[in-house]
Amino acid sequence: MSLVLYDYLPSGNGYKCRLVLKALGMPYRLVQMNIVAGASRTPEFLAINPNGKIPVLVVAGRGPIAESHAIISYLAEGSALMPSDPYERALVWQWMCFEQYQLEPGVATVRFWLQSLKKTPAELGERYQERFQRGADALAVLERGLAGRRWLVGITPTLADISLFAYTHVADAAGYRLADFPAISAWIAGFKALPWYAPITEP
Amino acid sequence: MSLVLYDYLPSGNGYKCRLVLKALGMPYRLVQMNIVAGASRTPEFLAINPNGKIPVLVVAGRGPIAESHAIISYLAEGSALMPSDPYERALVWQWMCFEQYQLEPGVATVRFWLQSLKKTPAELGERYQERFQRGADALAVLERGLAGRRWLVGITPTLADISLFAYTHVADAAGYRLADFPAISAWIAGFKALPWYAPITEP
Repeated sequence: MSLVLYDYLPSGNGYKCRLVLKALGMPYRLVQMNIVAGASRTPEFLAINPNGKIPVLVVAGRGPIAESHAIISYLAEGSALMPSDPYERALVWQWMCFEQYQLEPGVATVRFWLQSLKKTPAELGERYQERFQRGADALAVLERGLAGRRWLVGITPTLADISLFAYTHVADAAGYRLADFPAISAWIAGFKALPWYAPITEP
Repeated sequence: MSLVLYDYLPSGNGYKCRLVLKALGMPYRLVQMNIVAGASRTPEFLAINPNGKIPVLVVAGRGPIAESHAIISYLAEGSALMPSDPYERALVWQWMCFEQYQLEPGVATVRFWLQSLKKTPAELGERYQERFQRGADALAVLERGLAGRRWLVGITPTLADISLFAYTHVADAAGYRLADFPAISAWIAGFKALPWYAPITEP
């Protein structure tokens, strides 16, 4: 299986894919895209993903897969990162859906505005307040979900942990205070001790 | 397997679960929740889903599953609604992620504001414009994805079609004009001809 990942290194969505590829020891070719400079909206890239977003994984002989959670589910099927028990699998999907619908639109969007687009909260106005609050609410749900647990589902790390870790561990860059969330902080420390952990912007 | 679905009949997210249960002929008990009156924020319901949202499926002997896409993935595993080919599975997930991140926050949110909360676009202001545009962009992506195809992935209906159908077929209630999207309109007609089709608010 020959794999090419179109990605932007500061992207937490791309990072989820890079972590899974590293955890599973799968070789791949990385194509770095400067999305802030419009690289994901060129005709060449739109032919690969008409939705104009990274990450995209291209599987030789089959085609492209867009959406980080579709990519990591494809890669991790049959591995220890995806439980075989049907109910535990459902809980992994549940956390991934939560990440995408509640945490990512808050934490990731605010981080992108502040860090990649260099905007200020004052410039962003009401949109900033709404998205920041959404992220704060999501972090509170995650904190409750991690209370008394080492990993989100079962007793080993799964796609749920990788998905939630991607933007949560850099939430300080979006103006949140991770130190206020003891369960999340302990989980982040545990995640960083995994043998396949790598920093977010490492190619 | 004894199943209880906590749901609100106008919800497209709940409808996805009801359609899958009906398509697969799985018996279940429906608990109707009036979410507009706060039924999903009571202490009793928060004990089932701390995130305070419907739909939730409770599996006897295991526990609750939240998030519509986690629920339908759990129910459909091993059925014809979820392909066995790994690449086709990935494309089903890709469309479901797209639905949740782009179409639902546009079309479903605007529909909920107008239809369930009885707000007007003028009252909603900038938030309405932003969400309406997001839905319009998503419908354009879906229209391109359906061009020349009967179903989104493969040659039979899958979870991808159920997921996207749920809010798309009622997009007129959010102020879109489905007649402007010929591929979507043909796909909706095909979906409504399926033997397990049922209207959205049918218990």
